[in-house]
Amino acid sequence: MGVRCVAIGSCGRGKIDTGVVWMAFRGCGAAAAVLALLSAAIALYGPPLHAVIQRAFSLHKAHSTKDMENLFQLVRNIVPALTSKKHKGQDGRIGIVGGCQEYTGAPYFAGISALKVGADLTHVFCTREAAPVIKSYSPELIVHPVLDSSNALQEVEKWLPRLHALVVGPGLGRDDFLLNNVMNILEATKARDIPIIIDADGLWLIAQLPALIHGYQKAILTPNRVEFSRLWEAVLTGPVDTKDHSGSVLKLSQALGNITVVQKGEHDLISDGWQVLVCSQEGSSRRCGGQGDLLSGSLGVMAHWALLAGREKTNGSNPLLVAAWGACTLTRECNHQAFQKYGRSTTTTDMIAEVGTAFSKLFKT
Amino acid sequence: MGVRCVAIGSCGRGKIDTGVVWMAFRGCGAAAAVLALLSAAIALYGPPLHAVIQRAFSLHKAHSTKDMENLFQLVRNIVPALTSKKHKGQDGRIGIVGGCQEYTGAPYFAGISALKVGADLTHVFCTREAAPVIKSYSPELIVHPVLDSSNALQEVEKWLPRLHALVVGPGLGRDDFLLNNVMNILEATKARDIPIIIDADGLWLIAQLPALIHGYQKAILTPNRVEFSRLWEAVLTGPVDTKDHSGSVLKLSQALGNITVVQKGEHDLISDGWQVLVCSQEGSSRRCGGQGDLLSGSLGVMAHWALLAGREKTNGSNPLLVAAWGACTLTRECNHQAFQKYGRSTTTTDMIAEVGTAFSKLFKT
Repeated sequence: MGVRCVAIGSCGRGKIDTGVVWMAFRGCGAAAAVLALLSAAIALYGPPLHAVIQRAFSLHKAHSTKDMENLFQLVRNIVPALTSKKHKGQDGRIGIVGGCQEYTGAPYFAGISALKVGADLTHVFCTREAAPVIKSYSPELIVHPVLDSSNALQEVEKWLPRLHALVVGPGLGRDDFLLNNVMNILEATKARDIPIIIDADGLWLIAQLPALIHGYQKAILTPNRVEFSRLWEAVLTGPVDTKDHSGSVLKLSQALGNITVVQKGEHDLISDGWQVLVCSQEGSSRRCGGQGDLLSGSLGVMAHWALLAGREKTNGSNPLLVAAWGACTLTRECNHQAFQKYGRSTTTTDMIAEVGTAFSKLFKT
Repeated sequence: MGVRCVAIGSCGRGKIDTGVVWMAFRGCGAAAAVLALLSAAIALYGPPLHAVIQRAFSLHKAHSTKDMENLFQLVRNIVPALTSKKHKGQDGRIGIVGGCQEYTGAPYFAGISALKVGADLTHVFCTREAAPVIKSYSPELIVHPVLDSSNALQEVEKWLPRLHALVVGPGLGRDDFLLNNVMNILEATKARDIPIIIDADGLWLIAQLPALIHGYQKAILTPNRVEFSRLWEAVLTGPVDTKDHSGSVLKLSQALGNITVVQKGEHDLISDGWQVLVCSQEGSSRRCGGQGDLLSGSLGVMAHWALLAGREKTNGSNPLLVAAWGACTLTRECNHQAFQKYGRSTTTTDMIAEVGTAFSKLFKT
């Protein structure tokens, strides 16, 4: 805890900026274990090892100003310029799959967050009875009451060609019929090479069927601690190493075929099985429900932007890592700003009202 | 009226801070009567009498600054620290049972109040047709349209293991089928030892079947004058002594097996049959509908916090008394603050908007 340890850089996949690529460890023993694990993983998955000892970090010490500034700059690099030449839709058409009998707030939070971050259009695909409620929260959302219909796949497929990213899980629930429809939607989305962000009960589905998403390089999973453990048990043996969070995230990503995993927590840890980024932006201690939806919705837009920008704009790093770090940083800043105003009474609605100012403060170029 | 009288302290159940435990009387005759009654009750229910003459109070005189400060401090003691180590749900998952054909505002007021006080999640269990309306008031609530279904108990039982407190009654109505479901839900909740706050038509149900809640030490009833009289008639003979409010509240609590009773009124009187606390925080003369829901929702969270903190944090007093005093004080302060802004036009929505600042003002450590 708090021991300064060796941080290990990235490897293999082309040039990586040394200022922004690192892993953080809680203990040197853990670092050594992960070094061995990483080497093994690289031997399995990647090109020759070029791992470089780069920096020393600890989860309990702030990263250097330069490292942080580098990451902020990479996020700024992927944010599309606002120009008068653009037309509606170009900055993002984001789909949200979720909203059922119990849950209607979550897909709204995800959808409105995507819009407030800068998407032009959001489409929510939910059950018939959830639709009027979600519509009632905001006239900004386009809501399709199709998720519990027998032709859900066909209904969603009509829209897939227009979507830049799909967020699966907010307010999804665990109804078997719905989850079966979502399986088909996931397959169709993968076939179109559209980035997919999976959260909440979408992660429950993945824990039942990891093959659904294994190796899909445009997938990002955003588990909290409980969801992380469930995924871990689905694809790895033995318990999660609670003393080596970074190593665990790296390992889970590798076991899922190097898809991007964002473990939400006191610090957010982001890995694609090659690198681990740590997001320690100051948030608050308020843990009201809905904050994860703000993250997944924001990430939908930023994943699209990052992939559009490409590795040349992220200094060779995986664009999805940069998008995830940006969305985590934004969510935590929204939490921080809202908490400054409302303290313990802060709710997710208060946080979403901060998206505009938080985004400008963090990422305005 | 206004005569200074003897106030009687608590007894029996371990150490009680003398600064915060008292009863207030309107007349010396009443005081003598209650002394006799208390002695009789203690002989029936409790350990040996250690009643101590502690202080002199009158409902029409302010309590000493020290007494008030002691009570405020006890509430502060039960409020959980906000730390970055926590995860979603730890500061409270509160259930609300209510919401029917006529009433949809009340369960919303209770649920959103719980969140604004600091709960992380609230679940409303209501009828099928009430659900979309309650959902539409706020995306922050999780609303289950199950209360009028034939398997209502099973549907609620799915969630009970995750709930820290259940508030029964806001917008419940008096439909026999619903009340039968609520009876079963109450039994299941008691079996899990979850704190239960009962208000409104939940109290009507208890007046029909007092045995449903008799002796359940984690129950809090929050009757207004009419509801109080109805409960009184259900379990006691003779009329309520309108000249001795404190004695009456004490007596009703005892008759219900020492469950906590909060009689709302010009002053709120709170008793567990051993002690009586008086809440005289300045409110306003505005009596718009919904204020009781703000109280019951707040009390759901604070009851959870108080029981989690335990008697060591409440100086030996019953934690539920401290929670109730805190929730009454908060509700009255919200009323006061809203009335300062909106006067006669104040509604409960205005009061709920004050929860954050009122809570900080009263209880921030």
